[in-house]
Amino acid sequence: MANEVVLLDLKVSPFAARVRIALEEKGIKYESREEDLSNKSSVLLKMNPVHQQIPVLIHNGRPICESMIIVQYIDEVWNHKSPLLPSDPYRRAHARFWADYIDKKIYPIGRNLWASKGEIKESSKKDLIECFKILERELGDKPYFGGETFGYVDLALVPFYSFFYTFETLGNLSMVAECPKLVEWGEKCLEKESVSNTLSDQQKVYEAILQIKKELGVE
Amino acid sequence: MANEVVLLDLKVSPFAARVRIALEEKGIKYESREEDLSNKSSVLLKMNPVHQQIPVLIHNGRPICESMIIVQYIDEVWNHKSPLLPSDPYRRAHARFWADYIDKKIYPIGRNLWASKGEIKESSKKDLIECFKILERELGDKPYFGGETFGYVDLALVPFYSFFYTFETLGNLSMVAECPKLVEWGEKCLEKESVSNTLSDQQKVYEAILQIKKELGVE
Repeated sequence: MANEVVLLDLKVSPFAARVRIALEEKGIKYESREEDLSNKSSVLLKMNPVHQQIPVLIHNGRPICESMIIVQYIDEVWNHKSPLLPSDPYRRAHARFWADYIDKKIYPIGRNLWASKGEIKESSKKDLIECFKILERELGDKPYFGGETFGYVDLALVPFYSFFYTFETLGNLSMVAECPKLVEWGEKCLEKESVSNTLSDQQKVYEAILQIKKELGVE
Repeated sequence: MANEVVLLDLKVSPFAARVRIALEEKGIKYESREEDLSNKSSVLLKMNPVHQQIPVLIHNGRPICESMIIVQYIDEVWNHKSPLLPSDPYRRAHARFWADYIDKKIYPIGRNLWASKGEIKESSKKDLIECFKILERELGDKPYFGGETFGYVDLALVPFYSFFYTFETLGNLSMVAECPKLVEWGEKCLEKESVSNTLSDQQKVYEAILQIKKELGVE
């Protein structure tokens, strides 16, 4: 079967970055189509009519939506190399739990930190640091969340490493002071080509966030 | 291997109901331990320290948390009968997408409907009906969301059938007028023993919600 793989993409999106990392890990050739969220393409609206959000993976004409669902799809279809989820059901459930934790906490709390002011900003800062500390405890002394090799939870979290400079600058905090092991883990992930080739530069993410703040009127 | 299966449970919880249905579908004997959320057990706090929420499945002493992650675990460990997720990766991704949609929309919007007043209540009512209509379109003319047999998406949604009376009474709406096919689907699901044995009665859910409203001071 021919494998035509298209990604409706956005360079600075942590969710799209997850899919790019999974595709790189598996060595899949794909076409990245950068979307303009202020003027969404007709393809995006047709392929993800429910959420109208990136990323969307289009595999041989059929769409798959929602980043971690796409990652699981990639892991199941291209199962010849670089398994992302462990094979043991308990370890799979454990990995899914932490990816779900990251989904529920990091983006919404992080967004509250950079898109708000005053009390909400301060409580978000406290909450975000607490979440990162919980993740750091889960990492423990392992090189990666899954153990010796880069996997599902690493892939779920590492795109937010690109946001560390944004969190630090707009939240007036030091990631290396608060969570030194997590910073070290992020640097280690960046040694992998699948990550360094796909992740956005921290400065570029910061500039994109400044632009969004401007548009939202929360400078 | 001995299979000691304990469920930290709550009868009226739609999330716990999902796990009960999955266990019944697979024919697994388990011990249900009803939790008191106003006085959580030390077992719950130990087994789910991050979220401190039910349901928690404890399988041979090891905890699995978050309802749809538990359901996937059950489907993977007890794979001898009643598959819940389809075997084809694309259909699996499709089922995961809709279960995720239900998770993101029905409970939070439904809660806004019954726990608020005025404008928020009215906009939640409109949003909830719209979500149910989107789900009804996805169901189409199939007997179940997955096709001919009861599966993952049915299991994710059917516990909210127990909330239909609550939505109708507290939201002043008619589910059968708004979404007749979805009501028919719910009745069909209830013909299954795995569902009728585990689902809460609509009236009991309504009484539990009235009690919560009282505690929240939003009568």
